[in-house]
Amino acid sequence: MSTPVQRRRASINDVARLAEVSVGTVSNVLNRPDRVSPTTRERVVAAIAELSFVPNGSARQLRAGTITTVGAIVLDIANPFFTDVARGIEDRLTQDDYTLMLANSEEDPEREQRYLRLFEEHGVQGVMVVPSDERIDHLLALRARGVNVVLLDRSSPLDDLSSVAVDDVSGGELAARHLLEQGHTRIAFLNGPHAIRQCVERHTGVVRALEAAGLDPAEALVEITVPSLNADGGEAGTRELLASADHPSAIFCVNDLTALGALRTLRHEGVRVPDDVAVVGYDDVTFAAELGTPLTSVRQPTHALGFRAADLLLAAAAGAPAEQVLFQPELVVRASSTTP
Amino acid sequence: MSTPVQRRRASINDVARLAEVSVGTVSNVLNRPDRVSPTTRERVVAAIAELSFVPNGSARQLRAGTITTVGAIVLDIANPFFTDVARGIEDRLTQDDYTLMLANSEEDPEREQRYLRLFEEHGVQGVMVVPSDERIDHLLALRARGVNVVLLDRSSPLDDLSSVAVDDVSGGELAARHLLEQGHTRIAFLNGPHAIRQCVERHTGVVRALEAAGLDPAEALVEITVPSLNADGGEAGTRELLASADHPSAIFCVNDLTALGALRTLRHEGVRVPDDVAVVGYDDVTFAAELGTPLTSVRQPTHALGFRAADLLLAAAAGAPAEQVLFQPELVVRASSTTP
Repeated sequence: MSTPVQRRRASINDVARLAEVSVGTVSNVLNRPDRVSPTTRERVVAAIAELSFVPNGSARQLRAGTITTVGAIVLDIANPFFTDVARGIEDRLTQDDYTLMLANSEEDPEREQRYLRLFEEHGVQGVMVVPSDERIDHLLALRARGVNVVLLDRSSPLDDLSSVAVDDVSGGELAARHLLEQGHTRIAFLNGPHAIRQCVERHTGVVRALEAAGLDPAEALVEITVPSLNADGGEAGTRELLASADHPSAIFCVNDLTALGALRTLRHEGVRVPDDVAVVGYDDVTFAAELGTPLTSVRQPTHALGFRAADLLLAAAAGAPAEQVLFQPELVVRASSTTP
Repeated sequence: MSTPVQRRRASINDVARLAEVSVGTVSNVLNRPDRVSPTTRERVVAAIAELSFVPNGSARQLRAGTITTVGAIVLDIANPFFTDVARGIEDRLTQDDYTLMLANSEEDPEREQRYLRLFEEHGVQGVMVVPSDERIDHLLALRARGVNVVLLDRSSPLDDLSSVAVDDVSGGELAARHLLEQGHTRIAFLNGPHAIRQCVERHTGVVRALEAAGLDPAEALVEITVPSLNADGGEAGTRELLASADHPSAIFCVNDLTALGALRTLRHEGVRVPDDVAVVGYDDVTFAAELGTPLTSVRQPTHALGFRAADLLLAAAAGAPAEQVLFQPELVVRASSTTP
């Protein structure tokens, strides 16, 4: 690992002297390299390397000391939900001049462990993690080794472990109750694997709404596990659903990307939304309202989720006690689930 | 910085002995902490900390040696274009068991420098960077200090500096030529700041198409710089445009998120697309085809862009010479720009 901070600082004059060129030429190599001949450029770059010369802006920053970093691990960086959360985290960290290292577990516990180890090796101040499965033993062990931990988008089982989450049971319940109110008596649920806590809780919410309406979940709920929590997964799940002659008249999708795939497939197959099949998503991503069939969706306070998590992490670093934050989701009703 | 690799390894038995509990209780603290009383839990966690005990999975990974990491810096992690690129990078890195540290410059050169310094301090194998402005001096200096560099989504000015880019001049030209072919004689261009190379090149392409059609860009092109390259930016730019009585009948948006904001604003204002105003975006993101008015867009090979960049970086680490890769974009025509 290079440690430029500890080196004696070379000036641009030193570089020019060693390369036997003018200071202007060194500046050109740095700023407008295409104006310098390859031979001269090579000589200047060799001198820069030999002297470990760090130009202008970088020099100022190197003198300022070590950057303080925190790590965050999300399940899918290509999901707007998580990028909005990441933006909230960054907005909070920037206030205290911290930087964020962002990693993507792709819902894979091994990748998650790998990134955690990387963060630890790199001496991060703390980590915010959306766990890939039920286990949090590795997070407790990490904390025992002195790294602050905040659970992200997952409520904490322990009083002394901070967490920032949204009430997913309530979210699932809101979505299912809305579909029941629209007259549907059977609901398809395109869900992710039950290893993911959010998927379990949204399922619990759906079951709760069905039971409250006097329906038997074994009859009224068709759960399909999608291969991936995105548009391709939604497409596969919807194809599987349409293959059955007796499919429900409503689909609840565990996130909006999955709903996007469902809408695409229904359109291709000539199934009208909401007349033939109603669709409800989850997350209320930016484009939900602008879709061909504007999507009813459960909205989560994404930015606040990230912001608050970063807040708790910085507070923990300063010795504050743990805290569990639980936000409530809300339902945004649009054309995909209501006949005008 | 903690260096767990060098510590003497403690076993779960050591922890149990020190905490004066059974091995089963230690296991419970790690796996089902809610089943253990707070007092006992505290004692076990203290013992774990004192012995620097690393449980099961982590232990295996720690023995395997240092993880090899590369860094990537993109302009906006909330833009699906960049998350698709990041996915391409990860898919390539996974093949060689490398991990990716992803950072978001938000088009801010200072943030970019900060992350580069962080990556360097952490001893990454190399970096892939979408530069926030014209300057690449800091990248050359970084390379001179021994860190491999690949320019991402930006062509290289130097033969010995690798880059993977898409032809943005051609992309701008495709979009503008298409609008001219639809009969438009004046085009509004919602663009980002000219500090960003892609914005300059797409502008060059638009100008080229206008001139090829015998039009004077000073007359035929209305360029509006949006405050941010996303839906909010597109909304602001479109409001500015609609405020002028004599606005063009076509809008070319520098990316699809900006186009999403444009479509939203036009809908709110009762302006029909494409009848009153045609809209063309850039990137062809997942949801482009599913919008209320399906969006014509310039498609870029996002996954290949990231995959190839990671490929060049790993090749450079193995001593391969630099390479410049330039992909071609393609136009995907949909209803937002063509009257049926």
